[in-house]
Order: sequence, then C-alpha cells, then structure tokens
Amino acid sequence: MKQHLILIVSFLMFSVSFSFAQTDQSAIIEDFKPSVLNQPGREYPQVNSQGYARFRIEAPDAQSVVVSLGLGGRGGTTLTKNDEGVWVGTTEGPLDEGFHYYHLTVDGGVFNDPGTLNFYGSTRWESGIEIPAHDQDFYALKNVPHGFVQQVLFPSESTKTCRRAFVYTPPCYGKDPAKRYPVLYLQHGWGEDETAWSNQGHANLIMDNLIAEGKIEPFIIVMTYGMTNELRFGGIRSFDITPFQTVLIDELIPYIDANFNTIADQPHRAMAGLSMGGMETKTITMNHPEVFSHYGLFSGGTYAPDDIKDKSKVKLIFMSCGSKERPEGVRNADAALKEAGFNSVHYVSEGTAHEFLTWRRSLYHMAQLLFK
Amino acid sequence: MKQHLILIVSFLMFSVSFSFAQTDQSAIIEDFKPSVLNQPGREYPQVNSQGYARFRIEAPDAQSVVVSLGLGGRGGTTLTKNDEGVWVGTTEGPLDEGFHYYHLTVDGGVFNDPGTLNFYGSTRWESGIEIPAHDQDFYALKNVPHGFVQQVLFPSESTKTCRRAFVYTPPCYGKDPAKRYPVLYLQHGWGEDETAWSNQGHANLIMDNLIAEGKIEPFIIVMTYGMTNELRFGGIRSFDITPFQTVLIDELIPYIDANFNTIADQPHRAMAGLSMGGMETKTITMNHPEVFSHYGLFSGGTYAPDDIKDKSKVKLIFMSCGSKERPEGVRNADAALKEAGFNSVHYVSEGTAHEFLTWRRSLYHMAQLLFK
Repeated sequence: MKQHLILIVSFLMFSVSFSFAQTDQSAIIEDFKPSVLNQPGREYPQVNSQGYARFRIEAPDAQSVVVSLGLGGRGGTTLTKNDEGVWVGTTEGPLDEGFHYYHLTVDGGVFNDPGTLNFYGSTRWESGIEIPAHDQDFYALKNVPHGFVQQVLFPSESTKTCRRAFVYTPPCYGKDPAKRYPVLYLQHGWGEDETAWSNQGHANLIMDNLIAEGKIEPFIIVMTYGMTNELRFGGIRSFDITPFQTVLIDELIPYIDANFNTIADQPHRAMAGLSMGGMETKTITMNHPEVFSHYGLFSGGTYAPDDIKDKSKVKLIFMSCGSKERPEGVRNADAALKEAGFNSVHYVSEGTAHEFLTWRRSLYHMAQLLFK
Repeated sequence: MKQHLILIVSFLMFSVSFSFAQTDQSAIIEDFKPSVLNQPGREYPQVNSQGYARFRIEAPDAQSVVVSLGLGGRGGTTLTKNDEGVWVGTTEGPLDEGFHYYHLTVDGGVFNDPGTLNFYGSTRWESGIEIPAHDQDFYALKNVPHGFVQQVLFPSESTKTCRRAFVYTPPCYGKDPAKRYPVLYLQHGWGEDETAWSNQGHANLIMDNLIAEGKIEPFIIVMTYGMTNELRFGGIRSFDITPFQTVLIDELIPYIDANFNTIADQPHRAMAGLSMGGMETKTITMNHPEVFSHYGLFSGGTYAPDDIKDKSKVKLIFMSCGSKERPEGVRNADAALKEAGFNSVHYVSEGTAHEFLTWRRSLYHMAQLLFK
C-alpha cells in the first residue's frame, strides 16, 4: 500500500506540471487557427503549426487574466490587455502535441475559458485545448462505420446508488444477435471520471478506425467512475480500493454480462487504466486473477514477476508511458517480465508526458494485442 | 415563412426574459442546500425551500460579479464582496420551479459559475441551476430498470459531415431481438443542441419511470441537432428548414431504421420539439405527412385545421406551453382542431414559463398519448 501512496503522489506531481516541448525562441509563425475543441463558432483559443497556443478573453474591467497552461512551475501564461480592452497572449513556447487541460485565473478567481469545451479533470470541468499531433489520423472522426457509446445506469447495492458507465459497442454489434464479444474495462485517471475516455480520449474513434482498417477484431469497452470513495487531494492517504473493486467485480461486470452480448469469461476480459486507473488495474487484477486475463497500465506503474501468483492465468501485460515521464520504468519492468516468461509488451509514446495523447496511443497499441 | 419569423422572434424574447414566481418580500428561510446540478463536492450555488438561489464566487480582486438570473430585464443578481473577500448574493425573489440557464459577468466578461455543471443553451455551454419542483418525482433517478442513451455518429451526405444523435432505447430493448419499437424524433430549442433533452430534459428518466409504472408501452426516442444552418441571432431572417429537413428525413431516419429495431412506418413515427424545435416539427410534419403520424409542439406554436391537408394521416396533435407563456394560444388552437375533428390535446404547465420544466412535463404527458 505504501508503494501505492508513492505512486499516487507521483501522479499528482505529474498532473500539476504542464509539459512543454523544448522552448523555441525562433519566430512564431502566424498561422494560428481555432482549436478543434472550441465551442461552436468560437475563434479562440487558437493554435499554430508549431504548437503555440494563443488566448483571447473578454473581461474589460479585470485587473489580471492568467492562463494555467505555461512553462511548468512558472505560473502559466499571463495575458495582457490590448487597445480594444481584450486580454490576449501566447504561450512562451510550443506545447506538446495532444490534449491539455487548463483554466483561467481572472482577478484571483478560477474560471473556464468561454471559448472552449469543458472536460472533467482535476475533479472539475476544465477547459481543454488540442495541439494537432502528427499522428492524429488514428483518432480522427472519419467516414467509416461508427460504433455507439451508450450511457448505462446500473444499480449498485454496495454504494446505494445508481451508477453510470459508458459502453462502446463496435459498428457490427447487434447485427447478428448470436455474436458475442470480449470486453475491455478501461479506467480514467485521478480527478477524471467516466466521461474522460470518450471525450478527451476518443476511445470510440480509435476503435472505429482500427476496426475499419481490419487491424483488430471488434470488442466492447466499458468505462465507469473509479473514485467511489470520493478521493480528493486531502483524502489520498485513506485510499482504499475495496469500494471500487466491489462495484466493478460484483456489480458492473455481472450487469454488463447480463445486458450486452459479451463472452463472459476470464480469457475474454481485459482491464486497463491510465495513471490512478493503472494503479487500480494492477491491484484489482492481482486480487482477482480469475476475472481478467489481459492487463494494461498506461502511465500507471508496473508489474513485477512476483506480483503475479499464477502466470498461466495472464495472457498479456501491457505497460506504457510518455517519453517525458520515466520510460526506463516500463522498459525495465517489461524486460523482467519477459525474462520470467510473461507475454509482456511495453510502449513509450514519443514526445509526450503524463497527458492524454500518451494514453490515446497506448489504447491504440494495446487494442491490437488484445484477445488474440 | 413570415409567421415563422414572428414565432422565432417571440422565442428569442422568451429566452432572454427570465421568469420569477411572484416576488415575495417575506423573510428568506435559511434552509439553503447545494443545487442538485452542482459539480461534485461543490457547495454553491444553493437553493432554499422557497426557490431562492444563493451564489458564492471566489474572485478576490474582481470589481464586479453579476449573476444573469434575476428579475426580468433588471440586470440579474449583483453579488457583493463579503469580509472574506468572496462574492455572495441571493436572488431578489424565488425562481420558478425547474431548470434555469445562467452565467456570470465578472468585470465585464462572461464566464460560467465554477460550482455548477454546464448545459448547452444560447449557443454556448451555460451554467445550470435546478429549483426542486413539487412534481420532480416523474423525472427523478430511481431504482427502476434504466434504458440506455446511445451516442450515434451517422453519415450525412448533404452536409458532408458525420453528425451526432442520441438514441434512447427502453430497458427491454434488445432482450427479444424480434421485438420492434415505434420512434419519437424529439427536437431541442434555439441555441441548444442534441444533448439538451437528455441532460437538462431528463428524457431518459421520464421514459424509464413511465415504463416502470406501466403507464406507457416502450418506444425509442431520437434526438439530433436541428440547427444545420448554424442559426444565430443575426441569421434568423435567413432561416431555412431545408438543410435540417434533408438530414432528418433522408439521412437520419433511414439510418435509425437500418440500425435499430424500429417499426419503420408512418403510424409508428412521431415528431415533437420545443420552441424552435416545435416550429421545425410543424414545418416538417406539414411537408412530410407520409413520414410522421403524431405531432407535438412544446412552447413551439400551434397548428390550425387548414395547415393539414389530409386529416386521415394525423393520429395525434399535442400542443403545450407554460402558464406564464400565452396558454390561450394552445387552448384556442386545440379547440379549433377538435372542432375540425382532429385528435388534439393541449397541456398547460402550471407556474412555468419558456423553460425546461414546461418541456419535461410536456414530454411526460405526450408520451402517454403516443402510438395508442
């Protein structure tokens, strides 16, 4: 458990340190375009081809407007009021490719940028901005058959609530009522919720594209809320996996198997998670080797050979992180697992940190290894 | 078309005039509780048993914080900075029961309240607050079997996009693959989108509860975006139903009939909409009497007997509005339609204006009349 505490603390440290690509002092290219995550009709925020982000906030009587996206630890990007009384500013350097959470501090109060869509992270709905990635094609919305993302409300005796999950079903699902599918249970990170993997993760589009290209056999993905004990900054020391484990193993999985066309056995059930969701995945797969056969930790720690009691029950271990995290961790763990005879794979996302592009790519790679 | 312009202008007038219950100068009862729409763990905004709303915004260096919810036309609720440097304030009077959109103006800039969830309205994601209604039981989340709300991405040749719809399927859907269901196409209002009916409308919970109580036979609801021509305040005069009608009739309906277990004929297909969605419903049902048999206008105008060429094709006309709108409009139209031999029903939502409680109640009543 102590190891878990250290892990969580390191997640939090990652979460608050925004990561820039190498600071580039050369001229900023003036080819800024609205971020693809902007609200309909909104021109700002914008991003340019180098990955700089530019903000424009109307608050004519404000004393100070700061954007939380900035060089790590140096207080974000301070906007300045222009001649029209509008607050404008550009990041000091290019941002990493992919998705970033952010918010504004207006006269000391925390608000979202009214120009962008909101995404649940840091236990609040935050603003989001997207720096186009060179490999964005794999999660692009294309003219291919699309699966559905279904909001499911399932009863939970243990928490005395009706809980929400999102279920991705592949495009072919239901066409042949007799066909049944394997299932991946996929967890979000600390401060996020069950909306993260479809909203900022594009899990459904990643799957649609992989299926359309014939790279994988279709499977179902189930995403639910993994913070049953309302984990907050102050509550980390009391983190206990039991409440969520009960919801997942005793309530959600039986509900999914009763209501969807699943192959309801261990060989056809996987669990993966990002960051804190990886820690949950590790703990739950170790506690319940009879439930899952394929394990994935995305920026969420590693397995050691000794963690696993019965090697024969594990069909795949997938561990990943961004190159700006500590890739030697997953590399070394992967080597040790291979040495011990496990089917282990590691993946390092080039040029990314503890952010969602790392995890989109991780899902893309792990999906191609599942249920073989 | 001129009639439609007047209708749209009157919708906009309704949209910007927030409605209070009778101003009550008696003492405010200090039993405030967090609004049920607050973000996890947030204490404010709060509402009391009388319907007053209280706000608390941290922005220590701000000069001015105003909440847009206020007595109509009188500039909302101006907050004052308390001894702790926090902006606080309570509405001058009780708000109507139900859901209200709002936003903050902080030093002249428009932002959302970081305490609440956001809901798409007024062509932006707005803050929302819920004043508990005396009849809220009909849209409460209960321990009954729940249907799914599915996000569907369907191809649209006419707009060269992949468009989104949400599809409510009842709890029993898919259990018997041979069973097929009627479909209601249900439209949002101006400035809203396809998320409105499930998020602020609770259409899925209204259906789950009606089905659990045996008050209706299950049917499917399809909700998509009805503003294909990016209608904005400035664009009203150029409003043209054709692009949306093409998406609905030629693209969405065939897609739904191909991908869901529907009864794909006119007697088992209904269309309804609120406000601008009512105007769309009226126009499209008149243009395509061969597609829909049951029509619903919620605060969205009225039919006259002469509007309908072939009476035999219409199985139900349902018209509704809030008692604080112009209920004589739907009452008179209903009388004229009945006189002309139509199966017409009108409903007036007591104590509500051009807001979502009117429309939740309208759906609740109309659903019980459909597909009989």
